Amino acid sequence: MSELRGPVRIVGTGLIGTSIGLALARLGVVVELVDGNPDNALMAERIGAGSRLVEIEPQLVVVAVPPDHVGAVVAEQLRQTRAIVTDAASVKSKPLADARALTDDVTRYVGSHPMAGSERNGPLAARADLFDGATWAITPHATSAPEAVDLVRRLAEACGARTVEMSVEDHDLGVARVSHLPHLMSALAAGTLADAPSSHLELSGQGVRDVTRIAAGDPRLWTQIVSANSTALTGLLEQIRGELDRLLVALGKEEAADELTAILGQGVSGAVRVPGKHGTPHIDLVTVLVTIPDRPGQLARLFADAAESGANVEDLRIDHSPGRPVGEVELAVKPGSVDQLVDVLTERGWVVHR
Amino acid sequence: MSELRGPVRIVGTGLIGTSIGLALARLGVVVELVDGNPDNALMAERIGAGSRLVEIEPQLVVVAVPPDHVGAVVAEQLRQTRAIVTDAASVKSKPLADARALTDDVTRYVGSHPMAGSERNGPLAARADLFDGATWAITPHATSAPEAVDLVRRLAEACGARTVEMSVEDHDLGVARVSHLPHLMSALAAGTLADAPSSHLELSGQGVRDVTRIAAGDPRLWTQIVSANSTALTGLLEQIRGELDRLLVALGKEEAADELTAILGQGVSGAVRVPGKHGTPHIDLVTVLVTIPDRPGQLARLFADAAESGANVEDLRIDHSPGRPVGEVELAVKPGSVDQLVDVLTERGWVVHR
Repeated sequence: MSELRGPVRIVGTGLIGTSIGLALARLGVVVELVDGNPDNALMAERIGAGSRLVEIEPQLVVVAVPPDHVGAVVAEQLRQTRAIVTDAASVKSKPLADARALTDDVTRYVGSHPMAGSERNGPLAARADLFDGATWAITPHATSAPEAVDLVRRLAEACGARTVEMSVEDHDLGVARVSHLPHLMSALAAGTLADAPSSHLELSGQGVRDVTRIAAGDPRLWTQIVSANSTALTGLLEQIRGELDRLLVALGKEEAADELTAILGQGVSGAVRVPGKHGTPHIDLVTVLVTIPDRPGQLARLFADAAESGANVEDLRIDHSPGRPVGEVELAVKPGSVDQLVDVLTERGWVVHR
Repeated sequence: MSELRGPVRIVGTGLIGTSIGLALARLGVVVELVDGNPDNALMAERIGAGSRLVEIEPQLVVVAVPPDHVGAVVAEQLRQTRAIVTDAASVKSKPLADARALTDDVTRYVGSHPMAGSERNGPLAARADLFDGATWAITPHATSAPEAVDLVRRLAEACGARTVEMSVEDHDLGVARVSHLPHLMSALAAGTLADAPSSHLELSGQGVRDVTRIAAGDPRLWTQIVSANSTALTGLLEQIRGELDRLLVALGKEEAADELTAILGQGVSGAVRVPGKHGTPHIDLVTVLVTIPDRPGQLARLFADAAESGANVEDLRIDHSPGRPVGEVELAVKPGSVDQLVDVLTERGWVVHR
């Protein structure tokens, strides 16, 4: 088994690269920081993610540059060093193809994808614990050296992540389904609101807030991401277009109600498969609604009371429609602790609905 | 001005009808409960929403039956009584057209739509405060009597709601945009997950959870809702298909990156218009991330510390990726109180990220 000894060279000191540096530095691994923008590398160095000047040849290079540049930088690092090379991009086929077009030997390269991030960018948003318990996909290709796969797994583990190994193609189809397609659907739904009259927006509830939230992400970054995964996404978008056409034909025809119900039922089947907390399906939890006055300190009081009931709150949401003077908190707990929770909260004067 | 004296007859004692009954009963208004299912009416009566037997002619009839039956029941009530009649359906053109087809005089009818609900159904989920501070749309038509509009407004106010008056057509286009289209987009996105390999689902994060949440709603109920609003929805779905075709053409073509960015940018413009808490755009709030160990009592401790800082938590989310042993809570507060909040939490040992 390959041991992660270092030095580890990180090319690209944005959120992901700098966070990897911080995670490795806390284990005493020597980290070299490289960035086309000297200010970024300096900032990463100042917060303790590594050093801009390391004279020993790296054992491992982590390429964490914007998606469009990953393949070229991977090829460059394979040529310039004898190190094992990985990257952290959210798509895997295109970087591999790009690198192969630029260099003959990609045996020392194994792609990977830490599934963690933030709406914030740049080295100052970085955190040593960004990957604690996160999923980190490792995607060997046909000619990857086994010791390269091993070493990249060691990297992910050193950062505190849980590794999942899958093929490059399977990975890209997976993220197309659970990340890129949802983003595009969110953007399309939100797009219809851009020029809508304000009176229509006044009718908004929690549903449209949830569906459109991720559409607020940076359009330039997402253009790079979805472009790099266009093959997998095109198949899914064509599937969506087929379903959309079925919907348009069925909508408003009384005899086609079963067809509509079938399309919506397919949505239910998919929705319940999305894992909730800790990988458990969210249908295993019971939810309780609590009305809370809109005053400071009420949430503190509520959670103190909930804790005293012995129930662990597994998930929570605040629902607040425009103009409502009171809020509602939905607490999700394990079925075994719901009775006790409701009893204690009711006793303490909360308005609770199951 | 018409006063709401009662009796109020409620036809359909599900969640909405029974909640209206409870809200009126707490004001001392006499409420008559009618339901095709005698068990439902009995349950509504038992929880105090009104009485199954009222011998005085109603002043107002509220039709709260499933969407498909609203028009027929409205026409029936207009013929059988001299009362003003309203309904609570989430679409307004079709019930009006259905009622007009069955009765000559619809001057005593004014549609309305209380924008509140729950994932729960039936009389036992009802609550007197369901409409407190909620938006209640009132949709007069060309021949509505002014006193009928007045009385329906009184009903909404008596239930604690904030009224918004708009035309039948404008209402239906509005809910198509902010409710029905988001539901269909959520269902289509979730539908692609129904037959996906489990390994793909393992890559799920918070984004796909948010986008697909509402797709879990009852397919039969939603078939009725979207069918009743097919005209407004068809226009929007055709707009979506147009954008989807633009996406499919642009995707994967380097020269079309600007086109992709424009489509995604339109999504950003729409997403930021969706009102957050109390009708204010969510961009006015500042968010802070706090890491919390997955143990009972941690949320209580966090909110107690937050309350002591003097900050009022305006919104919150828990983010938990599958398999992560720690959770992260995102607290949204007004910009003026963020420094104090971060200082106090850090001082008390919380790991806080801005």
